[in-house]
Amino acid sequence: MSTIRVAAANDAPLILSLVRELAEYERAPGAVLLSESELRRDGFPSQGDERYFECLIAEEGAEAAGFALFFPVYSTWRGRALHLEDLFVRPRFRSRGIGRSLLARVAAVAIERQCSLLFWHVLDWNDPAIQFYRSLGAEPLEDWTRMRLPQEALAALAGDTTVQGDRGGS
Amino acid sequence: MSTIRVAAANDAPLILSLVRELAEYERAPGAVLLSESELRRDGFPSQGDERYFECLIAEEGAEAAGFALFFPVYSTWRGRALHLEDLFVRPRFRSRGIGRSLLARVAAVAIERQCSLLFWHVLDWNDPAIQFYRSLGAEPLEDWTRMRLPQEALAALAGDTTVQGDRGGS
Repeated sequence: MSTIRVAAANDAPLILSLVRELAEYERAPGAVLLSESELRRDGFPSQGDERYFECLIAEEGAEAAGFALFFPVYSTWRGRALHLEDLFVRPRFRSRGIGRSLLARVAAVAIERQCSLLFWHVLDWNDPAIQFYRSLGAEPLEDWTRMRLPQEALAALAGDTTVQGDRGGS
Repeated sequence: MSTIRVAAANDAPLILSLVRELAEYERAPGAVLLSESELRRDGFPSQGDERYFECLIAEEGAEAAGFALFFPVYSTWRGRALHLEDLFVRPRFRSRGIGRSLLARVAAVAIERQCSLLFWHVLDWNDPAIQFYRSLGAEPLEDWTRMRLPQEALAALAGDTTVQGDRGGS
């Protein structure tokens, strides 16, 4: 019987391990540049500081079986929503409904917070995941492409604001 | 000469107008279910309440020319990031660099807040936008599909947590 609990600050090393295991599954083993201290700071902040994400951990007995990591987003069509950044069940714990239980808990959080939608991204080749998500009623938004502006381009573009003198009233 | 300013609570009707104009451009004129009061509550909350988004407005003289609406997100690969939900310049104000200025201001906010990435979504048929974004150094994440769980499916899935009794320690 698996249980699900809300992650605490001392779970930061565990969460980072799970994030790395997921990145390996996603064929991007070197992609995780996040440090344990950043993860602790951003998910479990001191009072008054901003929290960037929340995390649930699934356990089978004393063992961590998987996790879900999510945060609020906003749709200007529909209002409050949640985004599920990561959902992962360790291979040896699969086919027991743990992924579904984690997702159901995230859905319950969404309902509690008056969110009308839950979003996430899936890799196009991940057929088992896509079939699972479709079975829950999820819809692929196939006519949209996600764009990413990397750090160097971000800094260059931010520099424009000074050059063009368009900082308005600030 | 255009100026950019941070939106205030009394801009809620203007922001909703701009959101609707953008939805028309996106060929989804009926998609905006958000109300003015929800938009005001979520973007300009009372002290102590959560803010779901921030908004910048571009003006040419006394006229609103466009807007950018964004909020923080989190990458478990790279940490703090911003997501640009909407970027829109009214047709008669285009080709004057206003979109670029808005995006540059959002990039400056990202840099100030130690974000390493800026994300957004673009419609696959919107070639002028895609070319503009590529010219800034943005990369399409072509192997990912965005999934959306609509409200009814969300509520059904949330109901599972009670049925399965897997609420863990809570």
